[in-house]
Amino acid sequence: MREVAIIGVGQTPVAEHWDKSLRDLAAEAIYVALADAGWSTTEGLFVGNMLSGSLNHQENLGALIADWVGLRHIEALKVETACASGAAAFRTGMIAVASGELDSAIAVGVEKMTDSKPAEVTAALATAADADWESAQGLTFVALNALIMKRYMYEFGWNHADFAPFSINAHANALHNPYSRLPFEITVEDYITSRMVADPINLLDASPIGDGAAAVLLVPADSLDRYAARDGRTAVRIIGSASATDIFALHDRKNPLWLAAAANSAKRCYAQSALEPQDIDFFEIHDAFSIMSVLSLEACGFAECGQAPRLALDGDICLTGRIPITTMGGLKARGHPVGASGVYQIVEIVQQLRGKAGKNQIDAARVGMAQSIGGSGATILTHLLQRW
Amino acid sequence: MREVAIIGVGQTPVAEHWDKSLRDLAAEAIYVALADAGWSTTEGLFVGNMLSGSLNHQENLGALIADWVGLRHIEALKVETACASGAAAFRTGMIAVASGELDSAIAVGVEKMTDSKPAEVTAALATAADADWESAQGLTFVALNALIMKRYMYEFGWNHADFAPFSINAHANALHNPYSRLPFEITVEDYITSRMVADPINLLDASPIGDGAAAVLLVPADSLDRYAARDGRTAVRIIGSASATDIFALHDRKNPLWLAAAANSAKRCYAQSALEPQDIDFFEIHDAFSIMSVLSLEACGFAECGQAPRLALDGDICLTGRIPITTMGGLKARGHPVGASGVYQIVEIVQQLRGKAGKNQIDAARVGMAQSIGGSGATILTHLLQRW
Repeated sequence: MREVAIIGVGQTPVAEHWDKSLRDLAAEAIYVALADAGWSTTEGLFVGNMLSGSLNHQENLGALIADWVGLRHIEALKVETACASGAAAFRTGMIAVASGELDSAIAVGVEKMTDSKPAEVTAALATAADADWESAQGLTFVALNALIMKRYMYEFGWNHADFAPFSINAHANALHNPYSRLPFEITVEDYITSRMVADPINLLDASPIGDGAAAVLLVPADSLDRYAARDGRTAVRIIGSASATDIFALHDRKNPLWLAAAANSAKRCYAQSALEPQDIDFFEIHDAFSIMSVLSLEACGFAECGQAPRLALDGDICLTGRIPITTMGGLKARGHPVGASGVYQIVEIVQQLRGKAGKNQIDAARVGMAQSIGGSGATILTHLLQRW
Repeated sequence: MREVAIIGVGQTPVAEHWDKSLRDLAAEAIYVALADAGWSTTEGLFVGNMLSGSLNHQENLGALIADWVGLRHIEALKVETACASGAAAFRTGMIAVASGELDSAIAVGVEKMTDSKPAEVTAALATAADADWESAQGLTFVALNALIMKRYMYEFGWNHADFAPFSINAHANALHNPYSRLPFEITVEDYITSRMVADPINLLDASPIGDGAAAVLLVPADSLDRYAARDGRTAVRIIGSASATDIFALHDRKNPLWLAAAANSAKRCYAQSALEPQDIDFFEIHDAFSIMSVLSLEACGFAECGQAPRLALDGDICLTGRIPITTMGGLKARGHPVGASGVYQIVEIVQQLRGKAGKNQIDAARVGMAQSIGGSGATILTHLLQRW
């Protein structure tokens, strides 16, 4: 396989874009990514999206978006792995370029959720869970995560307030990200008194839905000498990429508190890059709910089982901490347009590695890790990116 | 890229499988494909499916099916390109193996449509068209194809009865395919007097929906010496693979009677294999509607523009003709479980190339072509397979 590099990134704000359709959002992110690289075209388009069939009455998104942005006649398709769809589209595009089949590809994650009624969105998100054995019993997606969090608190003796730093850190970082959905700071008091959604998950444990799109342009690394970086918009190297699945329904797993697919995909990335957790400078984590940050940190080797809340309480997840997470606000506060989030993470890592993360810049950021989760841990993709 | 071979195939009958869920159908096809190759596992699962989100309340199909069939922890995802989803999943799996990222992959196409009400299925299928500029105006998917057929008849002076041979040929071939949905023969009289669906498309111009799954096992060709063919179940070589898109909405195309994405993807396959249309022994065509067979034959170089009905009237599309099409019944009579059809085509080509097509066997079949169409020509994938 050829090594693959990212040479352009783009994103829209995560918001209620009532004036922009699904294809408009995707186009905006793609145009920015192309302009960022100084390019005007690409050979393939890989769309990450989860809900367009159920919420937007639109499939065949690959061809739809390729046509809309003027990339006519190119290869295009949609990839779906629930909330990890963006990361899966990114990996699929990367493999197509690595294989030599394509000499360039755009991965775009896009989701348009706020035109639909809340009950429709809740039902659509439940398609990430097992329709026959979970959703059909009345379990919403947040309820599944609530069961996990409750069990975690019981097993390891943590109180709900101990999870506050995850939300506080995400919101603090979103404040300085112009693309974020909830750019305001919160306090421990705000967290504790926030409205309950599904006990013990309250509103500030849960990421907000939203409309948005993020895109990256991928090329073979050996072609980079042809594309000089302009204005410090340097290329970024993909040094690890892996995807894994787990037993699907929560009740079938021997240990519902261990994200096997996170551990497996992270391990593969560490092996590919010859790096270890301590070599990672920051971690864009799938904090759809606070508990998912906890389980990811543990599965990826940043904390012992049952001890990730300690990491957060000690400040180790902040921008200046040992392993900064959600450096631009994460799913929690940048927002979670589900099929797009996996690509937002990649865009944000590129911003950090280029030294373009503004007030949220990590000092001497060299290696960033992204992890995206589909379902309650059923599909997990991990990526490692390195400064050129 | 490494050359890739198919070493196992499996399929379920296309039917109203009221006793089998989506995952059951996929599992059945996967188990048969693995057993066909004498294998028990694989490294990746690529699911082609269009409608699970809108009709089955289930996404994250990759992980769901991987778990269900016991292929736990492997990489898995769903690929969607409307009715061409199966072909796109096949190509995505092929590229993953060709790249070296995976040493084996299963592509499975699956669709479960008959549990839903007809109006729900019609609305779901319309997501293949442009939601904002076509479906929102009341155009169903069959209505779009009716507009194309009407224009074709007007431009080139054909009568409706001239299209009869496409349907008659498909039904004749389905008769001897134990997996087919409509295994009965029809006459010209049946065709002419069949009930109208959307003028000029009648019931015998249109393919039936259905439930079904088809699967293939892909491995690098250079590993084939390790897997001896048993009982004549030889490997099949993929010698051409290409995907292309077109201007999305029908009304935006300069010529709605020219499938540019069919022509572009076929041309690329011809170039990859150094073959020409006259070297192709048979053609598994996307005959969702009779008019699509016509346009595919013309775009791929088997007939001049406006002349494909002549090919059919002359008997050239029959099993003993110049370019046999839909040799196992096609979408028209084997049935069209939409996201699965692209993989059914591949399975049927393998049957022919192995000499295992029973009463439908093409003499000395050496090279077969498959073409799968998503939307009214918006996404088209073409594949060329060759006997080992």
